Amino acid sequence: MSKKKDRSGWESPATEALRITSTGPIATFDASSTPGFTGDKALGEKLLLERGEVLADLQELLYANGRAGDHRSVLLVLQGMDTAGKGGIVRHVGGLVDPQGLAITGFGKPTKEELAHDFLWRVHRALPAGGRIGIFDRSHYEDVLPVRVHNLVPQAEWEKRYHIINEFERELVANGTTIIKCAMVVSKSEQKARLTERLERPDKYWKYNPGDIDERGYWDAYLEAYQAIFDRCDSDSAPWYLIPADKKWFARLAVCELLIDALQRLDLDWPAADFDVEVEKKRVAALDV
Amino acid sequence: MSKKKDRSGWESPATEALRITSTGPIATFDASSTPGFTGDKALGEKLLLERGEVLADLQELLYANGRAGDHRSVLLVLQGMDTAGKGGIVRHVGGLVDPQGLAITGFGKPTKEELAHDFLWRVHRALPAGGRIGIFDRSHYEDVLPVRVHNLVPQAEWEKRYHIINEFERELVANGTTIIKCAMVVSKSEQKARLTERLERPDKYWKYNPGDIDERGYWDAYLEAYQAIFDRCDSDSAPWYLIPADKKWFARLAVCELLIDALQRLDLDWPAADFDVEVEKKRVAALDV
Repeated sequence: MSKKKDRSGWESPATEALRITSTGPIATFDASSTPGFTGDKALGEKLLLERGEVLADLQELLYANGRAGDHRSVLLVLQGMDTAGKGGIVRHVGGLVDPQGLAITGFGKPTKEELAHDFLWRVHRALPAGGRIGIFDRSHYEDVLPVRVHNLVPQAEWEKRYHIINEFERELVANGTTIIKCAMVVSKSEQKARLTERLERPDKYWKYNPGDIDERGYWDAYLEAYQAIFDRCDSDSAPWYLIPADKKWFARLAVCELLIDALQRLDLDWPAADFDVEVEKKRVAALDV
Repeated sequence: MSKKKDRSGWESPATEALRITSTGPIATFDASSTPGFTGDKALGEKLLLERGEVLADLQELLYANGRAGDHRSVLLVLQGMDTAGKGGIVRHVGGLVDPQGLAITGFGKPTKEELAHDFLWRVHRALPAGGRIGIFDRSHYEDVLPVRVHNLVPQAEWEKRYHIINEFERELVANGTTIIKCAMVVSKSEQKARLTERLERPDKYWKYNPGDIDERGYWDAYLEAYQAIFDRCDSDSAPWYLIPADKKWFARLAVCELLIDALQRLDLDWPAADFDVEVEKKRVAALDV
């Protein structure tokens, strides 16, 4: 892992420090840690504001290229235990850029229509168009996470899905989509604190789901199911990152950095004019008023 | 028009001052004016920040209710001459709220598939779900604006559309959608300045469309077509507002105020728990860790 100081607070880039190949297994991962980052909350929040502007500029560049016909896109896949803060990432990191350039999709329990198709059907339909940043709040990985934990389909079927997902993502990447996969990890104690808070404040009731406590009973089975997607569906072109989520400020900063890195690697420039600039300048200069 | 000072800078609410019934005809409307608002740019920008937080809170309330099954939604329809700044409204007003709660759709030149359906087909598909704020960047009104100006369909056909649109919007309102329709008005001189700027900066080329100059040649026909939608498709339940757009800061503040008003009129409260709070508190308290 590189130790070069790429900016204040970071001793190694988020893309390295948070990559599943660096963090080690999820079962022993510290959800309150800040891998690669030595700064505190105050610095983290200050950085998020600054880096948010960098992200917004890069997003506009991507959008402009999309409008000019570039088919490349970015897809941020968010998975995580209940209360890990996926929604907060959408709001606070997605909220840093022009909402016009976002394509946000939440994947809940499949509808009847969705169940009547193969598990990737609804995912295909939600893929970002060229120039967009897609955000999946849950994703096709649901089909090997709760589905595996609860054996919602026979093992023989979910076993096949890892390979199908890899093929699917390989095709996406080949077609110009940069994929960033983030698993947000909350500790059991922090989850309990968040559930408690949701029950104490009537303005948080709507976020509380009694089913979350039932799911918590399968904690270890989930860790195993998560580890399986890291072991079987992580690659340099569709990498998995572990986002420690006990500190919300860090999770947001980390995902912002991963997006910035993805956009910078596209090495975009403003699209060339598809018209004769000098001719148009004369036309505009000749306008009345 | 009420003269009550509802907050600093405003001498009458945006909903009154900008309503087409107050502003008078578009042909004599001053695109650099700030109807109802006596403050300057500095105050306007300060207010937008403050009011943006109010808007964000209300949007979260709407979203929470949507999650709890409330089917009500808000639909912001943006129309306007080229360069009037529709995209800027999406970015800077839409950007004030959680992007997860937005459903943004841009309506361009209809595709082959869209043309094979009636003109409202693509609009129906883009309507916001309950709990969402929909933003239409252009809309079904395109079918009586450029379509009318250029007679893209026979007059007998576009003439019928005003009535069809009114019926459509009446049905939307009856089903719980609050509709806000904004026509952004830029002056000819400001349009020329914006077109000039787009040609001077390579980072703006992508926003320049030579066709905009051709369209400008139909300025008066557009004013007439706009006036027709105000005369025929304005009602208390689906009102039209004229947004003067020469001052971007004012256009943003104005649209923010219109959204706040729409959300406040829904008179929302946090949704009640659909579970037994005391029972759940005990379950959570009993969790390990």
